[in-house]
Amino acid sequence: MADDRETALTLDPKYDATGLLTAVITARESGDVLMVAHMNREALNLTIETGVAHFWSRSRKSLWKKGETSGNILRIADMRIDCDQDAVWLVADPAGPACHTGETSCFYRRIEGEALTRIT
Amino acid sequence: MADDRETALTLDPKYDATGLLTAVITARESGDVLMVAHMNREALNLTIETGVAHFWSRSRKSLWKKGETSGNILRIADMRIDCDQDAVWLVADPAGPACHTGETSCFYRRIEGEALTRIT
Repeated sequence: MADDRETALTLDPKYDATGLLTAVITARESGDVLMVAHMNREALNLTIETGVAHFWSRSRKSLWKKGETSGNILRIADMRIDCDQDAVWLVADPAGPACHTGETSCFYRRIEGEALTRIT
Repeated sequence: MADDRETALTLDPKYDATGLLTAVITARESGDVLMVAHMNREALNLTIETGVAHFWSRSRKSLWKKGETSGNILRIADMRIDCDQDAVWLVADPAGPACHTGETSCFYRRIEGEALTRIT
């Protein structure tokens, strides 16, 4: 029997035991995955209301407007939720590098067996 | 100071407290995010060795070769890891719908405020 969350047309996020969803951000133009982060209810609501990505920082234990200090905000072009509503996919226009290392994407290394190779 | 994990060219996954990484799967042709899942060490190693996506099912508490029963396997075209090595991005050629609901992608609903709209 299908879970209501899978068929309903009402936002009903399934937060994990720590109150978080997984958020995947891709770049509208390149289609690349830029980063993976987490959202609590407040971050999700602020993202929906403002059209700019907000997350929950697990390390700093605080709400985090992406780009608040760097200026590298993520403007949301599209926002999806998955079947069981525990993950969101944001299609974004990034104002600059999405990774704190200065790379365009956090996924700047390819896995080749036990080795990694830089793609940039 | 940069963490070695961020700059090293050696695979050194940072599993969470439950021994898992987050895995994001996109479709090579469409670029769409198909699903978000989790991998333990065994699932990651099997994915690297076989070129076919394996995950850890948190609900069933078991290793899971995606498509083992449905036939809808995910052949890996590219595999990346993020800056802190706690998330992987798989670019895949899906043999069929990636979602257990029969949808091509698990992200078949758009968030529009408190409402969801189907994209298919």
